[in-house]
Amino acid sequence: MRGRLLVLEGGEGVGKTTQLRRLAARLARAAVPHRVLREPGGTPLGDRIRELLLHTDGPMAAGAEAALFIASRAQLVEQEVGPALGRGEHVLLDRFLLSTYAYQAYGRGLPEDEVRAANRLATRGLVPDLTLLLTLAPADGLARAGARGGHDRIEAADAAFHERVAAAFARFADPAWQAGHPECGRIVAVDAAGDEEAVESRLAAVLARELPMLRPAGPLA
Amino acid sequence: MRGRLLVLEGGEGVGKTTQLRRLAARLARAAVPHRVLREPGGTPLGDRIRELLLHTDGPMAAGAEAALFIASRAQLVEQEVGPALGRGEHVLLDRFLLSTYAYQAYGRGLPEDEVRAANRLATRGLVPDLTLLLTLAPADGLARAGARGGHDRIEAADAAFHERVAAAFARFADPAWQAGHPECGRIVAVDAAGDEEAVESRLAAVLARELPMLRPAGPLA
Repeated sequence: MRGRLLVLEGGEGVGKTTQLRRLAARLARAAVPHRVLREPGGTPLGDRIRELLLHTDGPMAAGAEAALFIASRAQLVEQEVGPALGRGEHVLLDRFLLSTYAYQAYGRGLPEDEVRAANRLATRGLVPDLTLLLTLAPADGLARAGARGGHDRIEAADAAFHERVAAAFARFADPAWQAGHPECGRIVAVDAAGDEEAVESRLAAVLARELPMLRPAGPLA
Repeated sequence: MRGRLLVLEGGEGVGKTTQLRRLAARLARAAVPHRVLREPGGTPLGDRIRELLLHTDGPMAAGAEAALFIASRAQLVEQEVGPALGRGEHVLLDRFLLSTYAYQAYGRGLPEDEVRAANRLATRGLVPDLTLLLTLAPADGLARAGARGGHDRIEAADAAFHERVAAAFARFADPAWQAGHPECGRIVAVDAAGDEEAVESRLAAVLARELPMLRPAGPLA
């Protein structure tokens, strides 16, 4: 049986990486076969692209930034995600196409239709089974991101940029928006405020309802 | 006055780089302000992307390859081509969007509409004033490319790939194709067979007819 693709999304510091690790630990305890991958990166080529994206000192055109994220995604989908799903492993992914829509279309102001078409070069029809969208006021998220150490090139963008990104993610939780963007699959917004355990419980409850095949050894929540 | 954008295109070994150098020498002798740039590359970010594109050893998804070319182009257009044209310098460019259409859409088989939309992230409405499309039987071109040293990752693709690329470039010379692709601007095919001087004369004659502002100090041909 084909594996399921579960994506965690949200702005800076909402706790995607922490929660992905916690969800993966639950799957591991239940002996559910899975892979944890992140964007950008996750392949040798993608890791080199990640380095360009996060740590280039010189100028970077918005279109170049978008295309680099898409290049990394294309490699990840073809080399890792597609084969893993085909083997019946579930894939837990730290960011996917919604991040490109939020950061490069809404945040940088690139035309959404061009970003969507370019993204299809990467996803080639692959649609996530579920995206858990962690939501938090942008100031809180940036404070969390700042507390964990140095800002990378994208975290370091100005507050207005992060406000636009946060507004975009909020919009993606709207079923009307989702109906117009079938390539994004099912999206469920989850409040990321509070401590890690509280957020994990909320995520686990949504997962148990939306993707019960990810908890064959008993209830996740 | 805004500068003009002149592009040289064609498959492997048709002599683009050599002829671009010859045309630039003509402009320099006539004291016409100009820049010579190449794709992929031409900026610090683009040069790092070029290295990934031409010398990555591991697998590279077709969508990743296309997106990397587009990323390099986006940076080149924003950082170099656009400003130079705005200063009144003419820009001579070794490859541009037609190469992406030929290699990634026709050669690799990616959907043309997605490649075109993604390319708009890079060109942002910039249309070449003239593209000189050098044409040569693909076997002759590859023989020339081979004679000048080691094949890079794209030159090293199989013969069927290079046949598809050559067929694509031949198609781009068709006015009906051009009418459906206004983003490519004016394209003139020029026979690249024969010695360098003969090809240069043909190119110069086309240039004198199509872009007379590139020869203010007298006839180029």
